[in-house]
Amino acid sequence: MENGAKIWSFKGNEELQSASEKTVRGFLNLLMENLNKDDHRPTVPLGHGDPSAFPSFRATDIAEDAIVDALRSAKYNCYAPTVGILPGRRSIADYLSRDLPYTLSPDDVYLTIGCTQAIEVMLTVLARPGANILLPRPGFPYYEARAACTHLEVRHFDLLPENGWEVDLQAVEALADHNTVAMVIINPGNPCGNVYSHQHLNKIAETARKFGILVISDEVYNHITFGSNPFVPMGTFGSIAPVITLGSISKRWSVPGWRCGWLVTNDPNGTLRKSGIVECIKGCLDVSSDPPTFIQGAIPQILENTKEDFFSKIINIIREAADLCYDRIKEIPCITCPYKPEGSMYAMVKLNLCLLEGIGDDLEFCLKLAKEESVIVLPGMAVGMKNWLRITIAIELSSLEDGLGRIKAFCQRHAKKE
Amino acid sequence: MENGAKIWSFKGNEELQSASEKTVRGFLNLLMENLNKDDHRPTVPLGHGDPSAFPSFRATDIAEDAIVDALRSAKYNCYAPTVGILPGRRSIADYLSRDLPYTLSPDDVYLTIGCTQAIEVMLTVLARPGANILLPRPGFPYYEARAACTHLEVRHFDLLPENGWEVDLQAVEALADHNTVAMVIINPGNPCGNVYSHQHLNKIAETARKFGILVISDEVYNHITFGSNPFVPMGTFGSIAPVITLGSISKRWSVPGWRCGWLVTNDPNGTLRKSGIVECIKGCLDVSSDPPTFIQGAIPQILENTKEDFFSKIINIIREAADLCYDRIKEIPCITCPYKPEGSMYAMVKLNLCLLEGIGDDLEFCLKLAKEESVIVLPGMAVGMKNWLRITIAIELSSLEDGLGRIKAFCQRHAKKE
Ligand SMILES: Cc1ncc(COP(=O)(O)O)c(C=O)c1O
Ligand SMILES: Cc1ncc(COP(=O)(O)O)c(C=O)c1O
Repeated sequence: MENGAKIWSFKGNEELQSASEKTVRGFLNLLMENLNKDDHRPTVPLGHGDPSAFPSFRATDIAEDAIVDALRSAKYNCYAPTVGILPGRRSIADYLSRDLPYTLSPDDVYLTIGCTQAIEVMLTVLARPGANILLPRPGFPYYEARAACTHLEVRHFDLLPENGWEVDLQAVEALADHNTVAMVIINPGNPCGNVYSHQHLNKIAETARKFGILVISDEVYNHITFGSNPFVPMGTFGSIAPVITLGSISKRWSVPGWRCGWLVTNDPNGTLRKSGIVECIKGCLDVSSDPPTFIQGAIPQILENTKEDFFSKIINIIREAADLCYDRIKEIPCITCPYKPEGSMYAMVKLNLCLLEGIGDDLEFCLKLAKEESVIVLPGMAVGMKNWLRITIAIELSSLEDGLGRIKAFCQRHAKKE
Repeated sequence: MENGAKIWSFKGNEELQSASEKTVRGFLNLLMENLNKDDHRPTVPLGHGDPSAFPSFRATDIAEDAIVDALRSAKYNCYAPTVGILPGRRSIADYLSRDLPYTLSPDDVYLTIGCTQAIEVMLTVLARPGANILLPRPGFPYYEARAACTHLEVRHFDLLPENGWEVDLQAVEALADHNTVAMVIINPGNPCGNVYSHQHLNKIAETARKFGILVISDEVYNHITFGSNPFVPMGTFGSIAPVITLGSISKRWSVPGWRCGWLVTNDPNGTLRKSGIVECIKGCLDVSSDPPTFIQGAIPQILENTKEDFFSKIINIIREAADLCYDRIKEIPCITCPYKPEGSMYAMVKLNLCLLEGIGDDLEFCLKLAKEESVIVLPGMAVGMKNWLRITIAIELSSLEDGLGRIKAFCQRHAKKE
């Protein structure tokens, strides 16, 4: 066997393979590979949630300066404590407390490597044998991927397009059993662009209480709202059912590459502490990597000094983009948008394949659209809703207009002849 | 039950608890809590591997400037690709290839959140049901912690103090079976300060080949050597057995808080690709967070522009520290150092408890030392060797001298009366 067909004992963990196939990154890579290199028009990226490269979404100098100051101080070259450095945790507690009926303590806050690591930690912490978790459909597929990694059983409840993508609470009641440990909501919503009312969040809390489950509220798009409902944090209802709030600076500050987020326990009754969840969050962070210390050190300046007009400028662009998208989609017979986005940076739209010739499903639609029009749109199957599409609206308005025009041309070209 | 003793269904994942108890952080926190607040002398931190706060170990401006340039360019505010950005991977491939008999390609390199995430990824990738991994004793307990998280069975082989902490290869042969997937070496060594010779590394590769296992070579202290053996990367022997090299900028650049590392496949025969390990590494990174993009963007400047005298100044300090430590320990009857460190930043020393009054083990020694002398030293049990100590030598020489003096006073005070 020497030098020849040596037999090696290691092989890859197959579960990882199937977990990673579920990510948005996976679908987008597939579409990018399908672009036509001979098309000299710019590619219109309506697939991913990262507008940071567009001039209108350029990060503020205030945030950049905060990083430079922290770095140049040389106080943050060292390892950070497991939970994150105190000034960073304190400023996040203050920032989030502004919208809550009670005050968070820095000890409620854990710094994470983006909201991504916060999700990873929570799903790992909750994965006791036999446990199941309730996830929204459509949703953010990273939850499904991490649940697969930790053997947490997933059960899906629907979001209802006809009700502004509210949670189907009857479905939640039908799914929950004594092994259900948590339900996840994403508010403002990805992929639906919905913003939940105070009243609906209250009902979610009551339902969670009834079944003894905790609510994981992914608020990575917090304050990115531009419709009638203001942003209300789920933590408002923390005394009804315990809430874990996940967030980051990625979206609101338009710096997803900075990888700094948080996991926050909204636990006015101390339920999470008593049940061992808090200890377990620390345990999980003890065996994980941390966000860079100097980025943690910049968080207070970033959260406290960013000017309101930086936020409002971006919100105004996305609001205009939502209007534009909604209007243009109306002109395309094979696509309908049941709900005009009021938050986050996406619109969910429905394909009517009966009106199209030779297109079998949403993935085929997106693959052909990439090839023929150099427009990238996420197929609904990536977020759990076959034959829908998720369109990112947070890009330069002129590009959005260009992209929607090409989608229209594509649909006209592929329309069934009557 | 309403409002009263509500029954909640979630609880913490107990496995995490036990995994996190194994970390160095856990032991150091315990010792820090034991410090005497009324002792007004400065605490001497000989416990952890982070000299970055000491003036002599201050990071170079070149590295700081690289970060600022990358940040200010605004090209790196976006999400990065799963494997890391190409210029970063290319510069790491070039940097490591300088010491290898062949040239690495950027596709062999994956950027990770410090060497910590590289370890996490490798242990996750290898964890197929029934698999076991061979770890060094003493070692770096994060490996044990991550193995526990992924249900990878751990088997320990000894490092031999009388042979310059070389691997006991007979023990490896006795432990390995058809379920053994990998063995880990740490070179330069933590906690032993050893540096393996070309010949010994060659033997390790031959042993790995014989049993069909891969070698994970943790080279986070690469080039931190100051004795007779030069640093030889394990990848040199990649054509004998496949090697995964783990590293980071944390130690050599004295910036552990920057959290940027790498996982590199040294796989000239393509074994890792064929066995699915490469695909699986990508899959694992697909469902993990990434190092911040602008730090990735700074890597080429950091690796290419750092001046040799920055490295040599630090090496010279650690060399002097090794001499100082070795000499002073000789003056303390109850402690012996079998091997003067030649690399990394630690010395392993042995406690002779028979010469001490009322001290039961290494942990008790360290707890009392913290309380009475405000000196933090890591108990050997934290790294798998009961009744030894790990002393960090990479600190300001004057502090090291102070700390060793206090250890001597402590030992004299607790010496058994003859
Ligand atoms: C709902 C949701 N949660 C979490 C994340 C990840 O956030 P971060 O970039 O802070 O890791 C995203 C990113 O798109 C998201 O849409
Ligand atoms: C042997 C060893 N491996 C890995 C690490 C972690 O390195 P990083 O700080 O790059 O995550 C350390 C840190 O002390 C170490 O000693």
